Amino acid sequence: MKILGIDPGYAIVGYGVIDFTANRFTTLDYGAITTPAHTEFCSRLGQIYTDMQQLLDLHHPQAMAVEKLFFTNNKTTGIAVAQARGVILLAATQAGVPVYEYNPMQVKQAVVGYGKAVKSQVQEMTRSLLNLRAVPKPDDTADALAIAICHAHTAGSLLADRYFSQRL
Amino acid sequence: MKILGIDPGYAIVGYGVIDFTANRFTTLDYGAITTPAHTEFCSRLGQIYTDMQQLLDLHHPQAMAVEKLFFTNNKTTGIAVAQARGVILLAATQAGVPVYEYNPMQVKQAVVGYGKAVKSQVQEMTRSLLNLRAVPKPDDTADALAIAICHAHTAGSLLADRYFSQRL
Repeated sequence: MKILGIDPGYAIVGYGVIDFTANRFTTLDYGAITTPAHTEFCSRLGQIYTDMQQLLDLHHPQAMAVEKLFFTNNKTTGIAVAQARGVILLAATQAGVPVYEYNPMQVKQAVVGYGKAVKSQVQEMTRSLLNLRAVPKPDDTADALAIAICHAHTAGSLLADRYFSQRL
Repeated sequence: MKILGIDPGYAIVGYGVIDFTANRFTTLDYGAITTPAHTEFCSRLGQIYTDMQQLLDLHHPQAMAVEKLFFTNNKTTGIAVAQARGVILLAATQAGVPVYEYNPMQVKQAVVGYGKAVKSQVQEMTRSLLNLRAVPKPDDTADALAIAICHAHTAGSLLADRYFSQRL
């Protein structure tokens, strides 16, 4: 199963494409969509949408896994991230790719086996599981790969949380 | 100047299209994009995007005015609304329509002349300014028309707040 993991944002969108077949991971692609600061917010959304379309078109993943969003301190940034996330979800649904979402604890549990693992543990385990020489940079990219691993380990189980609106 | 006012949401997107020329308002169109509950959230985003494209294509507004988003109590709903708002902003920017945003106090000030006006006052003043027989329903539609009036009264002044990302 080919999975696209996404760490959403408006300045940096981390992405990672992995294949998980017969309990083995293959890393196909990873990186980050970055949008320039000091440009109109709406055109940053436009760029994220176009880059997401290209990514989906290139890899044709069977699923997209995205980190669940929570708002804590900085609400202005939170709104901007959620707006960018909407554009990312739109691109996926238009490409016919089902979207799954996981919260940070689910990702840690699936990758490290411990829901309260620290960031460096998640990153090191992601590197190891995917046979990478180093932890991918920026952090958003490593996070995106971790979310993809989470879906690989969770898909098919009842924990796979397809993003339905009934919960709204 | 032809203005599209938008009250963003994921279940209901209120819209209103007005023309403001030589200090006179003409009401061109108003209504609401509604998406069915109990369907996947992503396909609701897809519908909002398509309907927004049609609206922009039909009217070719010179500006889109949208209510600024604030998160208060229900954060889950807030995230969903922000995601839908991202899709709405995307459609506007792809159509080449500049986006302006106003907070509720600015809308009240511009429509009623008093920043702490109550909802019924804003609705009645909107009805009167636009020469409508009754206050449009649902409230989202009336709100969208009020935001459009706000932009008409504000555009050209320094208060017109084009949605730049520098502020993020």
